[in-house]
Amino acid sequence: MPVRTRTPLHERLLASAFGAGGRFATAAEFQDWLARAASRTSMETRRVPLAGLTGWRADERTGDLRHHSGRFFRVHGLDVRLPQQVVPSWSQPIIDQPEIGVLGILVKEIDGTLHCLMQAKREPGNHNGVQLSPTVQATRSNYTRVHQGRAVPYLEHFRDAAGPGVIADIRQSEQGAWFYRKRNRNMVVEAAGDVEAAEGFCWLTLGQVHRLMAVPDLVNMDARTVLACLPLAGPGLARSRPPGGFLDTLARSYDPAAGSHHPTGEILRWITEMRTSTDLHTRPRPLGDLPGWRHADGAITHDSGRFFGVIGVSVRAQGREVAAWDQPMIEPVGTGVVAFLVRRIDGVLHVLMHARAEPGYADVIELAPTVQCVPGNYDLLPDAARPPFLGLVLAARPPEVRYDTILSEEGGRFHRARNRYLVVETTEDLSHPEYRWVAQHQIAELLRHSFYVNVQARSLYVCLTSLVTAPHAEP
Amino acid sequence: MPVRTRTPLHERLLASAFGAGGRFATAAEFQDWLARAASRTSMETRRVPLAGLTGWRADERTGDLRHHSGRFFRVHGLDVRLPQQVVPSWSQPIIDQPEIGVLGILVKEIDGTLHCLMQAKREPGNHNGVQLSPTVQATRSNYTRVHQGRAVPYLEHFRDAAGPGVIADIRQSEQGAWFYRKRNRNMVVEAAGDVEAAEGFCWLTLGQVHRLMAVPDLVNMDARTVLACLPLAGPGLARSRPPGGFLDTLARSYDPAAGSHHPTGEILRWITEMRTSTDLHTRPRPLGDLPGWRHADGAITHDSGRFFGVIGVSVRAQGREVAAWDQPMIEPVGTGVVAFLVRRIDGVLHVLMHARAEPGYADVIELAPTVQCVPGNYDLLPDAARPPFLGLVLAARPPEVRYDTILSEEGGRFHRARNRYLVVETTEDLSHPEYRWVAQHQIAELLRHSFYVNVQARSLYVCLTSLVTAPHAEP
Repeated sequence: MPVRTRTPLHERLLASAFGAGGRFATAAEFQDWLARAASRTSMETRRVPLAGLTGWRADERTGDLRHHSGRFFRVHGLDVRLPQQVVPSWSQPIIDQPEIGVLGILVKEIDGTLHCLMQAKREPGNHNGVQLSPTVQATRSNYTRVHQGRAVPYLEHFRDAAGPGVIADIRQSEQGAWFYRKRNRNMVVEAAGDVEAAEGFCWLTLGQVHRLMAVPDLVNMDARTVLACLPLAGPGLARSRPPGGFLDTLARSYDPAAGSHHPTGEILRWITEMRTSTDLHTRPRPLGDLPGWRHADGAITHDSGRFFGVIGVSVRAQGREVAAWDQPMIEPVGTGVVAFLVRRIDGVLHVLMHARAEPGYADVIELAPTVQCVPGNYDLLPDAARPPFLGLVLAARPPEVRYDTILSEEGGRFHRARNRYLVVETTEDLSHPEYRWVAQHQIAELLRHSFYVNVQARSLYVCLTSLVTAPHAEP
Repeated sequence: MPVRTRTPLHERLLASAFGAGGRFATAAEFQDWLARAASRTSMETRRVPLAGLTGWRADERTGDLRHHSGRFFRVHGLDVRLPQQVVPSWSQPIIDQPEIGVLGILVKEIDGTLHCLMQAKREPGNHNGVQLSPTVQATRSNYTRVHQGRAVPYLEHFRDAAGPGVIADIRQSEQGAWFYRKRNRNMVVEAAGDVEAAEGFCWLTLGQVHRLMAVPDLVNMDARTVLACLPLAGPGLARSRPPGGFLDTLARSYDPAAGSHHPTGEILRWITEMRTSTDLHTRPRPLGDLPGWRHADGAITHDSGRFFGVIGVSVRAQGREVAAWDQPMIEPVGTGVVAFLVRRIDGVLHVLMHARAEPGYADVIELAPTVQCVPGNYDLLPDAARPPFLGLVLAARPPEVRYDTILSEEGGRFHRARNRYLVVETTEDLSHPEYRWVAQHQIAELLRHSFYVNVQARSLYVCLTSLVTAPHAEP
């Protein structure tokens, strides 16, 4: 009897990304499913004063916000010093959630093609109700069975995952401006046996998920960061296309053999240099005593009205069961801009990555998009504080704009946090000591390790990759 | 005029490793130089009670040992919990030295061959006086010019290093059992212009340094960890040798194309799994109140007499100038065993690496040698606590022992800390959930990143590599 050799994982991922298959024949069919899934659940998020949050209390001495159980997360204050920067020090509230959670996508072959089990999920911070989420978003308390309570569906596939069924498993940071050293495991696991899609879940090919990246506020942040950790890069992404075009160049840029402007070793040495030369100092500080922040109208806001606030919400969710809870959330002021400036160098697409320090990072610096800011925040700051390249991005003419979609950030902790995600092509040889041109395949290589590529850059990496796999007219 | 193309770095490193050149024609010439360098300096290290250390005092409240300037380092206590282990919790003293220092080797082409600028250096903890050290061992206070004081020779080459002259620059941890989150930059920098070897310094080819790895207590720990971070691995290490022998297999194992028992992605996912599933908790605790430890005879020792002690020393050094200082040091009880079990798998040499938790690691787990312990420490512990594979290593017959040399640990903080470094070949397919077979080229790949490979494993990696480049009779 012949040995049954399995197709290599990488080819199966490519087939799922490029293949026409999938449970939904058309985009309209998927939208119908999503609307039906949404109609079976509801969630009401009502603003309430922080002092009135059931189950939460401000510590008498510090004013820090904690859940009475000691679980979930805590909001405290932080003093930040970054002496080499234009704004060399500030204080701010920050979310402390030290538990390492799991963000997991379960995959399975259906009719010979890998499918991702995605979930139509409401979060209190979503401005639009349901978003497309990974199979599982669970805290460590969930997955180590420390506490009882409603089981998280499909969690067992990730909790006991081991061996070749684990396709990706890598810890990554999340927003370092709002989370203090938060890390989640980003996992993709192939199901060993039969798995049924429960209500609210559906099987999509990788190509179908990629196409949905073009829809505003649909694929949620948790799904994007997991997708970024999938080992999809390689020569196989280059398919027949009009040669020499942007998409052709992009597709070839996932192949390490395509070369790069800086050798990877040089990029790594530069990261070491930036991590050791950047003096980032943080010190917890009582939330009740934060210079520049006021407690008024049941929330904590900055005196300038800018940046973000800490608000309270009361949530009432209805689906198969009813649940209600209160919680604090971070609410940003204004919509941000998150942009890659990209450039073709010797036929390989490179991104101008920023070695960015954020107070909540585990290791000082992560590689961030070229631009990552809320432009309005800089109105009150000196001109020198205005982010480099922001003007260039906002002035881009339509043919240079390769991707432009509003996407939401995590709706479980952030209230209506949205960013305009942009990829803008330039032909200028831009240079700045805190920035380097990094090839797509180098970003892919860095994504195999923890804490090199920040969550915004991981999202944009997926946005770019979605252009390769989705049918797309060359502009 | 033809463009002068430079030989690629990798080939220049190989030429330095395999070439016959070098300033010393024979080993005897080098030993003469070393003896002369040693004779021009002296250092006297005298034990003194901790309470009598000039410039140091025990904090009134905690008993923690600090320098009056607040600089250098601090010795405090630590509570450690590792609930899944045989010994699930303990308390211990630990050295806290948060500054990131530089360990740097300056290299330069002499007569067309790269040479390393090495230093004959005394440290108070060295049992044998002078050891061969990197060009520079400097704290951050040194290299950021925060304080005045005697300039560290050659430091300017590392402080202002940038661009292609930087051959290696990577932060790595040091002993996680004795240092709390200590990290040093491991740098190799090629000098831009002419550099003279000052008194006590000499130029050696990489091959010459490798050959000295066979001499007990000669190449110091700082030099070994920097050498481990040199990008020497690749197909070029395979040279003509009796095919199929141990050295032939070893030499071929530095080539990523040679393959590996586990794909690298699987090793990385296993590290993620071990880092997230290992519950390591540490909490600082006053040094004056450590259960199981006694303050007696001017030192801090464990009640059992095992493990290590904190002692005080008074140092008087004489060279071109006279210097004298007092300091606390960690003094281990007994000589340790640090061993790789290696095995040829499909013609590629693999090391059985241990995912080891140590309280001082920045990220819970690092890959450690198969065995790393002081055997005597286990006499008082339950049998289950005895390290796996220790018996196998100690029972190895001579032909299986591929490397066996006593080497010293850092003499600036540790008093006469020595380990027997062993490489033992096995044909057994050993398996244990905390261990994985990792190919030499995979260790090399992990060494491009921070905090994957611990300091003892980095030393043994260099010991193994030295067998490839040094002329050596196949056993």
